[in-house]
Amino acid sequence: MSEAMTGDMIAENAGWLVVVGLGPGPDRWITPAVSAVIEAATDIIGYGPYTARLPVQPGRTVHASDNRVEIERARHALELAGAGRRVAVVSGGDPGVFAMAAAVFEAIEHGPAAWRALDIRVEPGVTAMLAAAARVGAPLGHDFAAISLSDNLKPWDIILKRLRLAAEADLVIALYNPVSRARPDKLREAFAVLGAIRAGDTPVIMARAVGRPDERIALTTLGEAAEVEADMATVVIIGSSETRLIAREGVPFVYTPRSYGAGR
Amino acid sequence: MSEAMTGDMIAENAGWLVVVGLGPGPDRWITPAVSAVIEAATDIIGYGPYTARLPVQPGRTVHASDNRVEIERARHALELAGAGRRVAVVSGGDPGVFAMAAAVFEAIEHGPAAWRALDIRVEPGVTAMLAAAARVGAPLGHDFAAISLSDNLKPWDIILKRLRLAAEADLVIALYNPVSRARPDKLREAFAVLGAIRAGDTPVIMARAVGRPDERIALTTLGEAAEVEADMATVVIIGSSETRLIAREGVPFVYTPRSYGAGR
Repeated sequence: MSEAMTGDMIAENAGWLVVVGLGPGPDRWITPAVSAVIEAATDIIGYGPYTARLPVQPGRTVHASDNRVEIERARHALELAGAGRRVAVVSGGDPGVFAMAAAVFEAIEHGPAAWRALDIRVEPGVTAMLAAAARVGAPLGHDFAAISLSDNLKPWDIILKRLRLAAEADLVIALYNPVSRARPDKLREAFAVLGAIRAGDTPVIMARAVGRPDERIALTTLGEAAEVEADMATVVIIGSSETRLIAREGVPFVYTPRSYGAGR
Repeated sequence: MSEAMTGDMIAENAGWLVVVGLGPGPDRWITPAVSAVIEAATDIIGYGPYTARLPVQPGRTVHASDNRVEIERARHALELAGAGRRVAVVSGGDPGVFAMAAAVFEAIEHGPAAWRALDIRVEPGVTAMLAAAARVGAPLGHDFAAISLSDNLKPWDIILKRLRLAAEADLVIALYNPVSRARPDKLREAFAVLGAIRAGDTPVIMARAVGRPDERIALTTLGEAAEVEADMATVVIIGSSETRLIAREGVPFVYTPRSYGAGR
């Protein structure tokens, strides 16, 4: 047991690497702490659509890359920091949730020992499920799980097992990375697994591009969710047995009460 | 299925209620969207320590209350909004995660019909587990669950069942509200349940008052975690079987790889 890193200062004369989260979309969800890191950085590294969101600034180098090369991107960032550059690695949402922070630490673990001595930090952000939940009410108001459906890096049967156990635990479930070219039907399969445990009228929120101009949020049910289209930019929230709708003019509010059994 | 509320504008001449999250501590984690709501509000409602974080502003009424009266606080906020006031209900962290948003929707569901027609919104924030994770590395880099140990509003056996299933699913687990006066030993009991399923050397992070001057972050193991003191301001993160330490000078980094089985 020991005290963890608590330093908040940005060293002026040495390289550093900070992994930052830009939130799910609009600038109004970027924390001042993240803006300060970006302002101070000499190099910005990230997936093209994220780096494109930042203003061009003289003297700052932007390294935009494809989405599929997270580990190479992390190594490149570490090399630059090791060479004395001030590097911001940008993620959407929160960098620690299915995003770049884990890739950076993976690169550090398997990279040269010198990387472990670098000034490395992570600046949190608003992750997509929080913004999606806020848009419709408070569906994450009680215990929940966040599960990525991406089977690039973990076996599909592990994902299905986790979904089953999370459903048995009656957790609200937020699904990230719900579709992929390699497995177009995986979300449908996930809904089928959950539907075997949870009622067909369980509220489901499918939130695409939350906070962006092309935002599209659908409220549906577990029984009908397979008919709603999702893409890579969609986060899906499946209610627990307690999640409720509040009828009103227009779209109902969706929330999960703080008390268990209160709605019964 | 239908489109959900997408309006971002703040009506000038009508009452509204926005539930906002101030993040876990410092102003640098408050989003510009939240700051704009607070700036525009005529009334601020919240638990005393949260409202105390905001600057005093002429013409703005601050209604600080005790922590135990969430539903009364929510009703009061709705009454004010119904009377044409512009009301910001403030939570720490994200308002949708074990915080005020669920209480507000609960009050709406059980309150007068007119409350459903009010302009009600939620502005997301950085929830404590994200900030805690960022401080030590990327322990939430893979699938995880967020579970409140508060048994004020749900039966303790439901909490233990959820912990067991989340451990069987090999999710990283973030625990909120780990202690209470009524049940001082509940965190110890939770560690015992998890320790029966997960290895004793599983990394555990106990993060108190993240981002605040009195921040205290301890890195320990599941086998020894019961000996570390926690309080109401502590969030606890228990690793999965995959969560790893990266040794270095000082405190190791902690992260959960993106790939399942990569570290084996």
